[in-house]
Amino acid sequence: MRQSSLFSTTRREAPRDETSRNAQLLIRAGFVHKELAGVYSFLPLGWRVLRNIMQIIREEMDAIGGQEVHLSALQSRSLWEQTDRWSDEEVDIWFKTSLNAGGEAGLAPTHEEPITAIMREHISSYRDLPQLPYQIQLKFRNELRARSGLMRGREFYMKDMYTFARTQQEHEELYERVKRAYFTIFQRIGIGDRTYLTFASGGIFSQYSHEFQTVAEVGEDTIYLDREKGIAVNKEVFTDAVLADLGLERERLEEVRAVEVGNIFSLGTRFSEALQCTFRDQDGTLKYPVMGCYGIGPNRLMGLVAELFSDDRGLVWPSSIAPFAVHLISLSTEASVQETAATIYRDLQSHGIEVLWDDRTEASVGEKLADADLIGIPVQIRVGPKSLAERRAEIVQRKGGTPQYVPIGELIPAVEALV
Amino acid sequence: MRQSSLFSTTRREAPRDETSRNAQLLIRAGFVHKELAGVYSFLPLGWRVLRNIMQIIREEMDAIGGQEVHLSALQSRSLWEQTDRWSDEEVDIWFKTSLNAGGEAGLAPTHEEPITAIMREHISSYRDLPQLPYQIQLKFRNELRARSGLMRGREFYMKDMYTFARTQQEHEELYERVKRAYFTIFQRIGIGDRTYLTFASGGIFSQYSHEFQTVAEVGEDTIYLDREKGIAVNKEVFTDAVLADLGLERERLEEVRAVEVGNIFSLGTRFSEALQCTFRDQDGTLKYPVMGCYGIGPNRLMGLVAELFSDDRGLVWPSSIAPFAVHLISLSTEASVQETAATIYRDLQSHGIEVLWDDRTEASVGEKLADADLIGIPVQIRVGPKSLAERRAEIVQRKGGTPQYVPIGELIPAVEALV
Repeated sequence: MRQSSLFSTTRREAPRDETSRNAQLLIRAGFVHKELAGVYSFLPLGWRVLRNIMQIIREEMDAIGGQEVHLSALQSRSLWEQTDRWSDEEVDIWFKTSLNAGGEAGLAPTHEEPITAIMREHISSYRDLPQLPYQIQLKFRNELRARSGLMRGREFYMKDMYTFARTQQEHEELYERVKRAYFTIFQRIGIGDRTYLTFASGGIFSQYSHEFQTVAEVGEDTIYLDREKGIAVNKEVFTDAVLADLGLERERLEEVRAVEVGNIFSLGTRFSEALQCTFRDQDGTLKYPVMGCYGIGPNRLMGLVAELFSDDRGLVWPSSIAPFAVHLISLSTEASVQETAATIYRDLQSHGIEVLWDDRTEASVGEKLADADLIGIPVQIRVGPKSLAERRAEIVQRKGGTPQYVPIGELIPAVEALV
Repeated sequence: MRQSSLFSTTRREAPRDETSRNAQLLIRAGFVHKELAGVYSFLPLGWRVLRNIMQIIREEMDAIGGQEVHLSALQSRSLWEQTDRWSDEEVDIWFKTSLNAGGEAGLAPTHEEPITAIMREHISSYRDLPQLPYQIQLKFRNELRARSGLMRGREFYMKDMYTFARTQQEHEELYERVKRAYFTIFQRIGIGDRTYLTFASGGIFSQYSHEFQTVAEVGEDTIYLDREKGIAVNKEVFTDAVLADLGLERERLEEVRAVEVGNIFSLGTRFSEALQCTFRDQDGTLKYPVMGCYGIGPNRLMGLVAELFSDDRGLVWPSSIAPFAVHLISLSTEASVQETAATIYRDLQSHGIEVLWDDRTEASVGEKLADADLIGIPVQIRVGPKSLAERRAEIVQRKGGTPQYVPIGELIPAVEALV
């Protein structure tokens, strides 16, 4: 895409009421727009990043047998009353609204109830299980505070998978399968090496739930981390009994701040019983599927990556989720430079490499380089009169390292080695 | 995908409270689930159809220079008060809700206000125009009645594009560009030959708006159609003066029922003025961009196609939006049949042809064929012991026509000719 036609622009200052670093950077770079506290709209560059994150998650959910669905945001009061989760005393983050036709509806903060009600109509036999439906859909949570930018929103995308198993053992196998897929997702997004399986409180149906916590100063959580074993304990369950149970030694643990990037829960039969979702087992008896639920927030991941990998010049995207693979920058408006850049632009595109070309004529070289650093596309190709005289272009990696001067005819393989 | 693992099942009866034919069929075939009147969730097959429709729209919007964004559903009261569209007297389909942190928010029924507020921050010069941002995002409309299944929802996807032009003339060029793209979309979705540009009331800034009306008995609109000229007039503006203005003769017009599948509006500077979105023109003066807005509802298109192309056996999808290109059906559980079907299944997949394989062992042949007809995938390949004895399979097109018996080695090209 040509930057001269991209509608978003960069700005020096973020809005004064925006206190989180991730949102400040994303607003300054033209990736998002703040509608309300905790509510952001996505501009072209930001939407590309969010969609890349969603696509990685989708691929990994499909790979483990997930079936993608799309459940409505508007939810009926009567359904949620059946599980005692309609009242504001039980769930204090509902957004509720009135129907002109009469009655109330809520905006789903999560989707256990509707997915179980759907499964009730489609599962009848043990042959119909196990199932792993999932969606990547908006969630609405009426948070009292929303000061963490994209990391805690009132409206945000969530990938939520729900598993339905015949037995506790089958449930545990599915649970392990999703757990492995989560690590793959975090690896692909570039935060795998600092993300740890963390034991947290489990609720009624299992002693622990599992969180995926990414070590980051900006985190709202405190975890106790055994780096060697690669597991951690959330402060909320950090007791001697728990440590003993998990075989962890207090003196080997490090107290760190972390961001919860995913969580997985065993739900037992809480929802299948309440909503009478049953199946006929092989022995003829009627049973309730054992359920699990598994969340990842793409918006939060985008905010976290913006925090973790940025520097004083701006954003630094991992190539797996970058809005474009390459930022091509014309360092002059001279015809020879623009023509060469245009040729490189077409060449990259014909090799399937997504490229943003800063072809603007009114911006100075300094502005272009500052904008490119702020936007944070991982590979920059700079074309100017000086390098062009030698039929070369400069490849600069946003995250640092030595610039390379590459003959123009060899640019494609040089770029392909980096993206 | 193997049908034995697909979680959705078919059913003989739709819920009694569902009166629309499209929703009845889509529920019976396991494509959607009704959450509330006018609110549907999408199961795997239905979500595939909806995503195919969205992808066609996205490709055509990108092709005319559209830039995809994603605006929030939650909207601030203060923004919409600036255009006098917050009050329920002005806009009677708002869903409104309260923030726990204080204040009110609304669920966007449309997005002129937020996109104009965003453009205000990113447009400053004539060089920044024209722009064609668009999104495919949920809309919420608190309709008093919702009895048309997917064709009139309280929560539904909308593709909404907004154009920002420097001059009225540039606006008109963009308007024509989008109009042409709309016809391409309707052609690709399979309703092009019965969809007509229809003159409707225009509002303050132009005499007419344009609707795209698809002739269908189920339609809520009445239009007067000149088939030869390929244009129509909506009943709401059907006067002698309008006919004279458009050069239409009353006696050549046909009164038909139709479904509005798209509409495009000239907005003038109503929103750019109210929200102070300006640009500095080449002559140094400050001006307001001339705006247009352009809507297409993917859910409505899905419902309409379900109505138009179905028969007494079920759905009949056009191949461009079908959930799968091919429905492969094992007519027996004999090992030789299942093995041959498995080979064909892998073969189709390796040729990039999306296939649903009915590999179920517990369903009878009659049930399988009835299910396949209800689900409506355009090409069926049936493999049974009889045809297999001759090393052939039967290709049946869902929309009718003579079945073909094709040697198994020649199936791929035979299928490729049909999809």
